[in-house]
Amino acid sequence: MPVALENLNTINAVEFTAALGASYEHAPWVAEAAAAKRPFAHLAALHAAMQDAVRNAAPERQLALIRAHPDLAGKAARAGNLTMESTAEQTSAGLDRLTEKDYAAFHRLNGAYRDKFGMPFIVCVRRHTLGSILRQFERRLDNDAVAERLAALEEIFRIAALRLDAQVAAPDRLPVHGHLSTHVLDTHAGCPAAGVDIVLVELDAGGAARPVARATTNADGRPGEPLIADRPIPIGTYELRFAVGDYFAGRDVPLPDPAFLDIVPVRFSVAEPEGRYHVPLLVSPWSTTSYRGS
Amino acid sequence: MPVALENLNTINAVEFTAALGASYEHAPWVAEAAAAKRPFAHLAALHAAMQDAVRNAAPERQLALIRAHPDLAGKAARAGNLTMESTAEQTSAGLDRLTEKDYAAFHRLNGAYRDKFGMPFIVCVRRHTLGSILRQFERRLDNDAVAERLAALEEIFRIAALRLDAQVAAPDRLPVHGHLSTHVLDTHAGCPAAGVDIVLVELDAGGAARPVARATTNADGRPGEPLIADRPIPIGTYELRFAVGDYFAGRDVPLPDPAFLDIVPVRFSVAEPEGRYHVPLLVSPWSTTSYRGS
Amino acid sequence: MPVALENLNTINAVEFTAALGASYEHAPWVAEAAAAKRPFAHLAALHAAMQDAVRNAAPERQLALIRAHPDLAGKAARAGNLTMESTAEQTSAGLDRLTEKDYAAFHRLNGAYRDKFGMPFIVCVRRHTLGSILRQFERRLDNDAVAERLAALEEIFRIAALRLDAQVAAPDRLPVHGHLSTHVLDTHAGCPAAGVDIVLVELDAGGAARPVARATTNADGRPGEPLIADRPIPIGTYELRFAVGDYFAGRDVPLPDPAFLDIVPVRFSVAEPEGRYHVPLLVSPWSTTSYRGS
Amino acid sequence: MPVALENLNTINAVEFTAALGASYEHAPWVAEAAAAKRPFAHLAALHAAMQDAVRNAAPERQLALIRAHPDLAGKAARAGNLTMESTAEQTSAGLDRLTEKDYAAFHRLNGAYRDKFGMPFIVCVRRHTLGSILRQFERRLDNDAVAERLAALEEIFRIAALRLDAQVAAPDRLPVHGHLSTHVLDTHAGCPAAGVDIVLVELDAGGAARPVARATTNADGRPGEPLIADRPIPIGTYELRFAVGDYFAGRDVPLPDPAFLDIVPVRFSVAEPEGRYHVPLLVSPWSTTSYRGS
Repeated sequence: MPVALENLNTINAVEFTAALGASYEHAPWVAEAAAAKRPFAHLAALHAAMQDAVRNAAPERQLALIRAHPDLAGKAARAGNLTMESTAEQTSAGLDRLTEKDYAAFHRLNGAYRDKFGMPFIVCVRRHTLGSILRQFERRLDNDAVAERLAALEEIFRIAALRLDAQVAAPDRLPVHGHLSTHVLDTHAGCPAAGVDIVLVELDAGGAARPVARATTNADGRPGEPLIADRPIPIGTYELRFAVGDYFAGRDVPLPDPAFLDIVPVRFSVAEPEGRYHVPLLVSPWSTTSYRGS
Repeated sequence: MPVALENLNTINAVEFTAALGASYEHAPWVAEAAAAKRPFAHLAALHAAMQDAVRNAAPERQLALIRAHPDLAGKAARAGNLTMESTAEQTSAGLDRLTEKDYAAFHRLNGAYRDKFGMPFIVCVRRHTLGSILRQFERRLDNDAVAERLAALEEIFRIAALRLDAQVAAPDRLPVHGHLSTHVLDTHAGCPAAGVDIVLVELDAGGAARPVARATTNADGRPGEPLIADRPIPIGTYELRFAVGDYFAGRDVPLPDPAFLDIVPVRFSVAEPEGRYHVPLLVSPWSTTSYRGS
Repeated sequence: MPVALENLNTINAVEFTAALGASYEHAPWVAEAAAAKRPFAHLAALHAAMQDAVRNAAPERQLALIRAHPDLAGKAARAGNLTMESTAEQTSAGLDRLTEKDYAAFHRLNGAYRDKFGMPFIVCVRRHTLGSILRQFERRLDNDAVAERLAALEEIFRIAALRLDAQVAAPDRLPVHGHLSTHVLDTHAGCPAAGVDIVLVELDAGGAARPVARATTNADGRPGEPLIADRPIPIGTYELRFAVGDYFAGRDVPLPDPAFLDIVPVRFSVAEPEGRYHVPLLVSPWSTTSYRGS
Repeated sequence: MPVALENLNTINAVEFTAALGASYEHAPWVAEAAAAKRPFAHLAALHAAMQDAVRNAAPERQLALIRAHPDLAGKAARAGNLTMESTAEQTSAGLDRLTEKDYAAFHRLNGAYRDKFGMPFIVCVRRHTLGSILRQFERRLDNDAVAERLAALEEIFRIAALRLDAQVAAPDRLPVHGHLSTHVLDTHAGCPAAGVDIVLVELDAGGAARPVARATTNADGRPGEPLIADRPIPIGTYELRFAVGDYFAGRDVPLPDPAFLDIVPVRFSVAEPEGRYHVPLLVSPWSTTSYRGS
């Protein structure tokens, strides 16, 4: 249940800190510092004030903030000793259901990272799939200590932005949401393709597919609502699968048996979790066109 | 090692029958009948003469011919008691490596078919994938006895055509070969896409993928040779997978990380095993078009 | 200056007839009859009441209504003796600026039509281009008298609907407007193409082009407003001309001299003046795709 | 009637010079010098020997060669005082049928060029349309004298190559020919579009269209032969016009009246006269795709 920004502006500092303290992991001092800057007209201003508090803190305090984060897929996670927020976040990217191979990879990377930097690896898990977390992990191991300290804080700000956006009802929303939509045009009949079943799957590195959304196109050839909205689109590889064989068969279009096109997969990767991805399909029983649209 | 048609025209009838007897399963009388019609200027004429011998045979003889065929994935196959030709054919569609579930399906269908028609189910296996054999099997169980007798003979002729075409060197070839090719055009640079790695996979009903051909495009954007030629393209569903991410990265095109398009899958089904399937890809880092071409 | 439907509901019948009498050519009795049916909650109901008055009128009165219409491009038009409404309508399709050849065609058709049917040829000119009027004219000459009487009334209703929709401010609008829009996607850069100049031209039978709208795409790749809206799209042939050469040159895309694509014409015809025509362009410096979208 | 290279290798030097003297305008000494280098196994070697003779000549002799060329669209051309070769070349680009405005442009440019460089402007006219000649002319006026001397010789070599390639029958041909072809795929029916009428027009700067080739597609969706081959494709802008409305109507595809697509224009420019331009069309009654193919 989100709390209204206007209420946050009027309650006392202790209540304010109690309400927002969890947005920075084990660091209620961030909310405390922001409490003094009230009132905030927009959520963006509140978020900025909390970021300022972290940026202006002494290096030791920043480091303590970083160190208060749990390892990804680490002992604390396995033992169930995470904050409620961290638990939900690690679950979103599947870190609670790793294969032994992936668990071993995390174990190795967590160790190597702590050895080099003396702190846990932090990433805003909701912006990632498992594969992209592991790629980030490998890359950031190559950073120097200064760059990596900045990278860790940047990720902490992203985590906080998502937590704040979910917790606070305000006139504005933070720019933390992506948008993934599609549209099917029937170039055989020259009209939107209505009634096409669509599945969006996330593909892992091994090619395994996990469904993340299902929809059927309406009279305008679009799902009734975006396939993903109101959350980041995790960096990763996806496939839209359009059931065009059933669609054309249902329109009595003459087709061979089996039809040349049945399930049409459109595979693409997302690099900007907060981006707008419109991936339409132009389709006849014999041809397909897809692209990043707008 | 194929035998020359001109030699088949000159050897004696016993030798002729020895050479071609195996083209009709356990039925050397078909070759014997054709021997009397020599000489043949073309392989098509030889094939027609053998078909005529079967069509003009007494119904009992036709039935004996049909009954001489082994069950698909049946006891004889499991025990290794097939003719050399049948063994190779059943292997081509993967009938030698069935799951228990598929084996059970064949067992049930073989039984139901024998119960209804009093003969084994015959299909020209080289024209099919496992899935299309099972679909055919289900459908043909609905036939009446007359239609099914004709269907069985038609399949025997197809089997014989493939065997003859492989065994005999002649001025002509029988129309038993399909053709599957592709072409990659780079619409970002306006030229053929050279050096694109391509895999052709066969997809089974469960979505599992089995690679059947690999190629890399040449300077004209084409594999050096067709992906499939000189054999039927088994009825089934395929995916061409084009490694366009590596291609564009190798040309220093600015791309997000990960690239919007990496492996581009183009999924299609083949209904005519002897058909010409040209499935090109027009591709930029942000758009794809594919179609049945010519 | 449109009159409000609520006012039309309250003024007296004489004023009502004065306000709407011109919607049926020289036939104030149509408005008079409708006055008695007030009040009207919607413009559609008013339009239906006026149509009913005509449909329920005696055949002679209907014929008189038809005969009150001027010839297209006829003597009255040349002499400037048309109602204000007819003048504007005939101008919209270019009937005031005919070549001698077209004038002669109208003269011949008007004569033949009057000889056969004893009435003037009526068509809702705003739904047509010159070419489509002439084609309609030729075709309707083949009708029999009964069919043609109905066709004439149908066109009178269409004329009246457009006149009413322009004259009356109501909660609803009559379905007399088409919609023509476009969108430009850059498949080289994977984004909407902003700043592309577009001209919409109407093509006549001889291929001559008359510009009817100009626009430049905004950041979303769309003209700020539809190219045609709030009026019927005249039945005819059009070309959208997209200045993509300047667009890509402005983005420093390497191009040959001259560029492969400079002005990209997309030619299409409109058959439903009240239809929704969305005609997008997907374009790289080397490829174009366009289609009837939605 | 071409002369065989092998004959050119055996005749005496005077005959050789008589046969090939006209390949360099009023400069038989070029052929004379090449005669001494015989025999030539290939036409390319003969062409190279003649180029060497020019490159090794004294600057005054090179300048005399340049000055021996007539003005484009100049007095000599108007008076009919050109060599047979120059006459045919100037005609190919329409220099014999200029408007007064274009004639005036040439008059002005010829004067300015002679004033600056003291020699006539030379360009290989067969590689150009009128518009591209005028553009070249304007640009080359900005060159300095040294660059322009080299440019003039380069154009003389191009002119000579075309003349030699036409005059001499040899095992090889000089790389002076372009190739312009097309292909029509029907994405509604999934097959090549047979029987589609195509016109290739050249567009001038004012938008006027001059037909340069006509063809009808065969069963494979292609014109029986390339639209342009065996000559350079003049630098300029072209439109392929495909009569797809008639094609789909002839296949009983349901279409609105008028059809959304009737004549489909594909406009493109040629920058490399010796290039290979394959410009295919993928078309349904509602969508078109075209691109530079291969």
